[in-house]
Amino acid sequence: MARALRLAERGRYGTHPNPRVGCVIVKDGAVVGEGWHQRAGEPHAEVYALREAGERARGAEVFVTLEPCSHHGRTPPCADALVQAGVAKVWAAMQDPNPLVSGQGLERLRAAGIAAESGLLENDAQRLNRGFVSRMTRGRPWLTLKLGMSLDGRTAMASGESQWITGPEARADVHRLRAEAGAVMTGPGTVRSDDPRLTVRGFPADPGAAVRGATVGAEVLPVTSSMASPAGGNSAIQGTLPYLRQPDRVVLDTRAQVPATARVWAEGARRLWLTAGEGAAPAGVERLVCATDASGALDLAAALQVLGHKQVNELLLESGPRLAGAFLKAGLVDEVVAYVAPSFLGHEARPFATLPGLETLSQRLNWRFAGVRQLGADLRLTLHPA
Amino acid sequence: MARALRLAERGRYGTHPNPRVGCVIVKDGAVVGEGWHQRAGEPHAEVYALREAGERARGAEVFVTLEPCSHHGRTPPCADALVQAGVAKVWAAMQDPNPLVSGQGLERLRAAGIAAESGLLENDAQRLNRGFVSRMTRGRPWLTLKLGMSLDGRTAMASGESQWITGPEARADVHRLRAEAGAVMTGPGTVRSDDPRLTVRGFPADPGAAVRGATVGAEVLPVTSSMASPAGGNSAIQGTLPYLRQPDRVVLDTRAQVPATARVWAEGARRLWLTAGEGAAPAGVERLVCATDASGALDLAAALQVLGHKQVNELLLESGPRLAGAFLKAGLVDEVVAYVAPSFLGHEARPFATLPGLETLSQRLNWRFAGVRQLGADLRLTLHPA
Repeated sequence: MARALRLAERGRYGTHPNPRVGCVIVKDGAVVGEGWHQRAGEPHAEVYALREAGERARGAEVFVTLEPCSHHGRTPPCADALVQAGVAKVWAAMQDPNPLVSGQGLERLRAAGIAAESGLLENDAQRLNRGFVSRMTRGRPWLTLKLGMSLDGRTAMASGESQWITGPEARADVHRLRAEAGAVMTGPGTVRSDDPRLTVRGFPADPGAAVRGATVGAEVLPVTSSMASPAGGNSAIQGTLPYLRQPDRVVLDTRAQVPATARVWAEGARRLWLTAGEGAAPAGVERLVCATDASGALDLAAALQVLGHKQVNELLLESGPRLAGAFLKAGLVDEVVAYVAPSFLGHEARPFATLPGLETLSQRLNWRFAGVRQLGADLRLTLHPA
Repeated sequence: MARALRLAERGRYGTHPNPRVGCVIVKDGAVVGEGWHQRAGEPHAEVYALREAGERARGAEVFVTLEPCSHHGRTPPCADALVQAGVAKVWAAMQDPNPLVSGQGLERLRAAGIAAESGLLENDAQRLNRGFVSRMTRGRPWLTLKLGMSLDGRTAMASGESQWITGPEARADVHRLRAEAGAVMTGPGTVRSDDPRLTVRGFPADPGAAVRGATVGAEVLPVTSSMASPAGGNSAIQGTLPYLRQPDRVVLDTRAQVPATARVWAEGARRLWLTAGEGAAPAGVERLVCATDASGALDLAAALQVLGHKQVNELLLESGPRLAGAFLKAGLVDEVVAYVAPSFLGHEARPFATLPGLETLSQRLNWRFAGVRQLGADLRLTLHPA
């Protein structure tokens, strides 16, 4: 199963909106087939593994990181394929998180006389697909808030000057975060001040690095399924970045202020404009009208549900202090990734988040440190809700 | 020499204003004597080691973490004692940092026909006595600024509420910092708002912990030199905290506002009142009149020189945002120790430092991360000037 998880990892930057899945088929103590899901519309992990195993799949044990599907989607059900191949036993790391179909794939296997169990290395499997799990169970994406700040919690001088607070290693790591996300979201203030592209650039430097989790950057070398091994499996793609999908770009823009000329609307990815305002969307931009809250601003929880409907698994928020503070205060952030530079910008500089109305210590927002890593001269702090 | 440095470490909390020194005497490949300096007024490391070695010191090699003294202080010169004992060779980790006497101890040994060299594990020796080195070479203490703050760089709510931002492990570690410092300094604002005692309390929990560098707390078990081993050395004191000196308490108080009833003036340590204002010092408090700068505030560099004259090696600054910011901006801070809690207090809360007049990124204060450690739920970040 650990091997199947490593295979699934190769889909980290490409399977959206599908989950990342790996599969290993073992017979008489030897691996006879393996595969992983590369991108939406292409075969599932089990299919690659079965193709490679061929007749050797009969009576074999199958290790797959997610319960095999039992429904007809863009591809036929994998559970049926496993039954037809005559495998003896199927281990799933976790059940399908979709409550409507969870367990049905395993049931289908059992009904055909195949032993089927789940729960092997389940924590790792859940973590790998936390975005997919979030969408299936909560109807909204996993939300990561990215912050780049000085040690005194500032992101820009009072004048707005902000390039650069953190060093090149931290900035390159942000492109890794983007590559991992299904969508990157910002607000009109950031578009106005920085006009960001929100694209993945310069990642990964070393094409093999993405698979190993390294971070720095040159150009991407996409590997398509045509490079799959002649035997029919695709596990032969060793150490190369299989497929990097440019994340969707999302602008949360209550009053529809972002101009059509903004770089965030440039072609190359799906672009979503969440707004309560009037105005025609630029060509190729999908306008999604959202509910507002009592203050007249977009209802953030509702906006996340809209993005869940649009099949966004993992959402990266790169915004100014107002939007960052609003999401934090609403309790909608699942993870904070803070790049902290060893500098002081002073109390007159701009804070990374505005959090109005916190008056007593009991009202503070409590998190916990989940990880610390040095990136060049900076630290990357990962936090989860307490 | 590594063994001598470990012995010297035992003086970490007690030798002020003297340096921490350890000594090991080796003959025919075996240790025949060792010792370390425990507190001012008591024998130097070499004396303990020579006492233990006795006649075996003749023809032996001596490893001492600091150049043996050549002058009459509270004790006779160690260089003379080494000559009298007839040792063959002396290795010093570093020369005496006092430029007026540096090298004289080694010269005195050489003049007596003893081989004498320095520079063995010198970096470690320099680090162990960075406060003593600072006072000898710059005339001022090594200044550590302690910060306790939320992830957004806040130390208190707008109301002033500040207990507690960080957890018990971080707060206990502050007592370790105080124990290590020769003096702890604050300003009138902190006295007014928190009325701190600035004493070392609850450190170390485990009496052996101090020697191993651990941090949490119950009561102190002082070990005096009467516990020295019968053989005359003092190395037998294994794993117990030898002597913990309460640090001096310093209040930087331009207009002499701190009342006589402040807890910082309570007995139990030397108390220094640096001020430019009028007013009689409370009983037992030493009033030191300092120069002011153009703005009428105490001249911070001059204040540090005064503390250097008062033999403070290591100074810990635990103050409010104004004084912290002023020292940072003046470039007088040698180390920042920031305890960072995984919480957000909001942009209306108080910053840990006020740094007026920083307008462009080029004016930011640049530091570098020198260490990161998890303490309970918090992080301790150590920074040095870039």
